[in-house]
Amino acid sequence: MHQVPRHSTAGPGVATPDAASRWSDLTQTTDAGRRAKVLEALRGVLPEDCILDREEERRPYECDGLSSHTQLPMLVVLPRTEEQVGAVLAACHALDVPVVARGAGTGLSGGAMPHASGVVLSLARLNRILKIDPEACTARVQPGVRNLAVSEAAAPFGLYYAPDPSSQIACSIGGNIAENSGGVHCLKYGLTVHNVLGVRGFTITGEPLELGGGALDSPGLDLLAVTIGSEGLLMVVTEATLKLVPKPELAQVVMASFDDSGKAGDAVAAIIAAGIIPAGLEMMDRKATVAVEPFVKAGYDLSAEAILLAESDGTPAEVAAEVADIERVLRASGATTIKVSQSEAERLRFWSGRKNAFPAAGRLSPDYYCMDGTIPRKTLGRMLRAIGDMEVRHGLRCMNVFHAGDGNLHPLILFDANAPGEMDRANQFGAEILELCVELGGTITGEHGVGVEKINSMCVQFSTAERTAFFAVKSAFDETGLLNPGKAIPTLARCAEYGKLHVHQGQIPHPDLPRF
Amino acid sequence: MHQVPRHSTAGPGVATPDAASRWSDLTQTTDAGRRAKVLEALRGVLPEDCILDREEERRPYECDGLSSHTQLPMLVVLPRTEEQVGAVLAACHALDVPVVARGAGTGLSGGAMPHASGVVLSLARLNRILKIDPEACTARVQPGVRNLAVSEAAAPFGLYYAPDPSSQIACSIGGNIAENSGGVHCLKYGLTVHNVLGVRGFTITGEPLELGGGALDSPGLDLLAVTIGSEGLLMVVTEATLKLVPKPELAQVVMASFDDSGKAGDAVAAIIAAGIIPAGLEMMDRKATVAVEPFVKAGYDLSAEAILLAESDGTPAEVAAEVADIERVLRASGATTIKVSQSEAERLRFWSGRKNAFPAAGRLSPDYYCMDGTIPRKTLGRMLRAIGDMEVRHGLRCMNVFHAGDGNLHPLILFDANAPGEMDRANQFGAEILELCVELGGTITGEHGVGVEKINSMCVQFSTAERTAFFAVKSAFDETGLLNPGKAIPTLARCAEYGKLHVHQGQIPHPDLPRF
Repeated sequence: MHQVPRHSTAGPGVATPDAASRWSDLTQTTDAGRRAKVLEALRGVLPEDCILDREEERRPYECDGLSSHTQLPMLVVLPRTEEQVGAVLAACHALDVPVVARGAGTGLSGGAMPHASGVVLSLARLNRILKIDPEACTARVQPGVRNLAVSEAAAPFGLYYAPDPSSQIACSIGGNIAENSGGVHCLKYGLTVHNVLGVRGFTITGEPLELGGGALDSPGLDLLAVTIGSEGLLMVVTEATLKLVPKPELAQVVMASFDDSGKAGDAVAAIIAAGIIPAGLEMMDRKATVAVEPFVKAGYDLSAEAILLAESDGTPAEVAAEVADIERVLRASGATTIKVSQSEAERLRFWSGRKNAFPAAGRLSPDYYCMDGTIPRKTLGRMLRAIGDMEVRHGLRCMNVFHAGDGNLHPLILFDANAPGEMDRANQFGAEILELCVELGGTITGEHGVGVEKINSMCVQFSTAERTAFFAVKSAFDETGLLNPGKAIPTLARCAEYGKLHVHQGQIPHPDLPRF
Repeated sequence: MHQVPRHSTAGPGVATPDAASRWSDLTQTTDAGRRAKVLEALRGVLPEDCILDREEERRPYECDGLSSHTQLPMLVVLPRTEEQVGAVLAACHALDVPVVARGAGTGLSGGAMPHASGVVLSLARLNRILKIDPEACTARVQPGVRNLAVSEAAAPFGLYYAPDPSSQIACSIGGNIAENSGGVHCLKYGLTVHNVLGVRGFTITGEPLELGGGALDSPGLDLLAVTIGSEGLLMVVTEATLKLVPKPELAQVVMASFDDSGKAGDAVAAIIAAGIIPAGLEMMDRKATVAVEPFVKAGYDLSAEAILLAESDGTPAEVAAEVADIERVLRASGATTIKVSQSEAERLRFWSGRKNAFPAAGRLSPDYYCMDGTIPRKTLGRMLRAIGDMEVRHGLRCMNVFHAGDGNLHPLILFDANAPGEMDRANQFGAEILELCVELGGTITGEHGVGVEKINSMCVQFSTAERTAFFAVKSAFDETGLLNPGKAIPTLARCAEYGKLHVHQGQIPHPDLPRF
């Protein structure tokens, strides 16, 4: 792209790869006089009870789910109305103050980590469901509404909101939009970007912006799609129109055992290649089933090297036909035993082990490092075999739990932070997995986002031309670079420095491990 | 957005709402010396047989499917390789020459209409299918490949490419990407944007750019989505990775009669509200069925005010269950008679009438004007009743043929261009329909794009803030505004002028009618 020359000669305040580094140091603080000026401006647009000024009030906002990265913000605001959100943004823009929007704070990559000289803009009080329209199958909601609350409100009409991240009881729609959240059902029902019809909100200057709408397509550029998953870098959403889908009449889970985890990986590719799109398609290896079975009693086959869980949903006739197809492919792929859930209770029991894999890891090992990457489905078998080799090489165990259907891996590297060298080895192990993801044609994050956690890995994933294109679009929405600086898109300078480090160490170093 | 002040003080060569107007006059010509210079530069990067210089060679490129708008281009180039495409773009950029990329030229909104002082870049020779991967269910193709050719190549593997615009025998994948094309099946299988996994190509400077990839989601901003449907304004695509889907085992069509077209419209909303997503859901009113039945003999009920055609596809069990559900909803919505296709021949016969509605209009009237707009499904009934009133007011007949499932209208206004005043009345009729589309919460184009045809209507559809956001993103990809200038996004100046005209006439004037 050609923006760099222009931008590099532009004055300060332009969100270029270089100018953005002005704000990329999240710990950069401001003097007291400046802080007083910002506080005064915010008091001009917000009631006093919408501003958190004292340190003990601000402390709970110092991190999100990536608790290894903390930073006390200069100020926190909790507006109650859309107008107040717009006014806060305009005030911060006028004073050149970074703004970090925050939903429920459940994010795992530090996307809502504060800026030392910035304002945290919490959307928690914009928490109303404005309308459920059962005829159009849509919900109009504010960003602070919890994900699960949408489905609860839609339930009386036989509808639900499909994206179901595992934090769905707590995470907010605004955060889901920022991270383009998925979930177990995203293979069949899509990610957040496929389930949001429109948003409205404000740019950093406080100007209102409405994107998308009720129609399947709309003229003009698809700015809605570019906003979803932009990790709070482009605009602050104050209202969203969501697509609702009918609750299926029936759901059943097929559970299959394999004597080799590579074979299980290949079976996943075979199911998709056969044209079957299960409502969920998950995989666990033996290390994972052995860890969860004793306390969950899900009924897993502990003699199997790996198990697959494939869900089918729809009308009873559809489910019967699809379950038969799934069984056929699984047998042809070498499944040793196959069980189909015979009741809703049994279906939920089959899933309970998968859902408790992370806590189970905590029972096996003092510490664990949860990775998040994606690979093309057909390389799943190869990735599993490679992880087995890495276990030997690094002398650490790794449980494997996968959203296998969409190739999203969550390997859990087990280690003891108190044992000398183990943390470093876990770090290297994790970096190797991500590097292999990119090598196999995948990506460095499946659903947890980039945030601060993976900002260095973006240097590996994307070329300079691609990162420059990201900056150009960022600049089109937020010229000053004030919205969530230092996240998601690394500056050119950062990648140059990272590149040197990479060459120096002969491998990709991974950022600090999260605390457990 | 905040770009306007910066841009308005920037020098020439920045694609702002104002600077873009430098190129927005498509008929602006260049002197002979300049033309010679461009020709020399192109000869430096292309073999002689890839350059069309003589007027008779350039003449066939003077318009696309919107044949009312013609403009002879300065030069036409037909590169054979990706590298040549990049080199042509770099050469044109260096000499400040507008470039209009062109696929098969079947577009209906003038998106590929040439620029008098510009180069038409035809992608027709990049027409190879590079790979069909039945395991990953993908096809890697060049942009000049015909839409239907992809499905033909995938057929031996039981797969096909879902988006099926009615021009699919001729239109190219590159053009489909530029226009985000749909088709009868897009209700269930999505538009082009839902079926393209990645693209690669070049920006106007000739720099290579790769967007998207094999994974369901990828980190960074979703620039792939913003590129699809950008009508050639952002980049030139030289390769695309498409999603393939399995061919359904069975398809059946349910045909229902209604004694009121408003009721038929409401039935469409009821089907979707019941959670049924048919593979196709089309509607024709009595004026349309009466026109086609005599020469197609599709078996339509000519006593019905409107008929609906709903297709179900899948396994035999799935189709049986869905057809029963569709019948139930149709009866509850007041369908008078219902027929279900009992063979593949009958299914195709039911569709043949719908597919021949446009030629049938040509039998009824010397001229017709095909409109393209969308509305929320639940307002279909209201729109149909309003069109009935407009017929009386304008003294013209209007046949109604709809992609009803996704609310995409194709009213065909019948008129005689030789009868005094009829063309003006048809113009006003069409403008009123589009205005009502926007008023009902819909859009001014469903699938034919904006191009030059509807550029004024974009002033009605979008606010200044939204159009400025479009320009900012355009500028992020193409700072100079050289890629397909004067299309899709109107300049602020154009909309200001159009606004005055609007107030003056007391209604939205519509651009020139296409010729027939």
